[in-house]
Amino acid sequence: MFHFTALVTCLSILCYLYTSILVSRARTAFGIKAPAVSGNPDFERAFRVQMNTLEWMPIFLPSLWLFAFYINDALAAALGVVWIVGRVLYMTGYSQAAAKRGLGFGIQAGAAILLWLGALGAVIWHLIHA
Amino acid sequence: MFHFTALVTCLSILCYLYTSILVSRARTAFGIKAPAVSGNPDFERAFRVQMNTLEWMPIFLPSLWLFAFYINDALAAALGVVWIVGRVLYMTGYSQAAAKRGLGFGIQAGAAILLWLGALGAVIWHLIHA
Amino acid sequence: MFHFTALVTCLSILCYLYTSILVSRARTAFGIKAPAVSGNPDFERAFRVQMNTLEWMPIFLPSLWLFAFYINDALAAALGVVWIVGRVLYMTGYSQAAAKRGLGFGIQAGAAILLWLGALGAVIWHLIHA
Repeated sequence: MFHFTALVTCLSILCYLYTSILVSRARTAFGIKAPAVSGNPDFERAFRVQMNTLEWMPIFLPSLWLFAFYINDALAAALGVVWIVGRVLYMTGYSQAAAKRGLGFGIQAGAAILLWLGALGAVIWHLIHA
Repeated sequence: MFHFTALVTCLSILCYLYTSILVSRARTAFGIKAPAVSGNPDFERAFRVQMNTLEWMPIFLPSLWLFAFYINDALAAALGVVWIVGRVLYMTGYSQAAAKRGLGFGIQAGAAILLWLGALGAVIWHLIHA
Repeated sequence: MFHFTALVTCLSILCYLYTSILVSRARTAFGIKAPAVSGNPDFERAFRVQMNTLEWMPIFLPSLWLFAFYINDALAAALGVVWIVGRVLYMTGYSQAAAKRGLGFGIQAGAAILLWLGALGAVIWHLIHA
């Protein structure tokens, strides 16, 4: 079983869901009425935090699970925790200013790309040795 | 095997795909030429229906499958059907007016969060008892 | 095991990640500062390529894996390669002009819908014969 990877999956969804809640709050706080998604830079930054997290979910989640299946559950989960930490730093940084989004972005991108590289390498290794 | 969950996965993709088709139609009907995604409130509401459904896919699908694996296939699928019903109500409501999107949103959010809570609880239970 | 499907999953993520990198480059090239996502049609086309690829990931990936589980690993992977080819044509076409996005879009949509239809048909067949 892949309990650690399953736990990190749930926690990454929570982290992403929280970025959506911040968009709802920003909608009310800055008076951006649906369906508009622009008109105030503070709202737009909150919206971009959610969108960017959404953009990375289909990179992160499949790579995480392939890494877990092919390599190791606990190691996949550990890299998943790094991804979530990067995402939280991205969220708190970008909420303050667009220029402060770099560190968190880099950490989460690094963790996701390591998961992807590990999965790809392991798959190719199995295809060659099968 | 998880036939019911697999079936509901296919149906949720169909529901989501349908929101994309409505955006294509709205593009033609309201003369919004690609790459623009704004300029007419009726188009923007159709676009937001698709985007919001997309935003919930990485919450719904992993939670659905973890719930099915850890708890029960048929129960996961039943909550998945509730999610789809909420999504259809959201689509039909929001297509008419932004103010009419609340009921469907609440139903789908409730179903997705129940799936997530069930999955999280079951994973933690297994980690403690493993 | 599903090595071919896993490999195609990694390659589809790479293809999608590349569309994100093109958005970063377009941001710099056309001077679109975050959090803005509009203001220059060349930037907007690059952004829409990424967004449209993102929009199809939750259609493509679950359909690909259900097809692989229920039908065949290599056949799923072959259709997955067609999807990636369609995505690359969409990216190169749309980067030039909005009118040139049709061919690639049609190819990737066809491949994804075949995967979805195969998965749905196989699931229903199993539910009837179970």
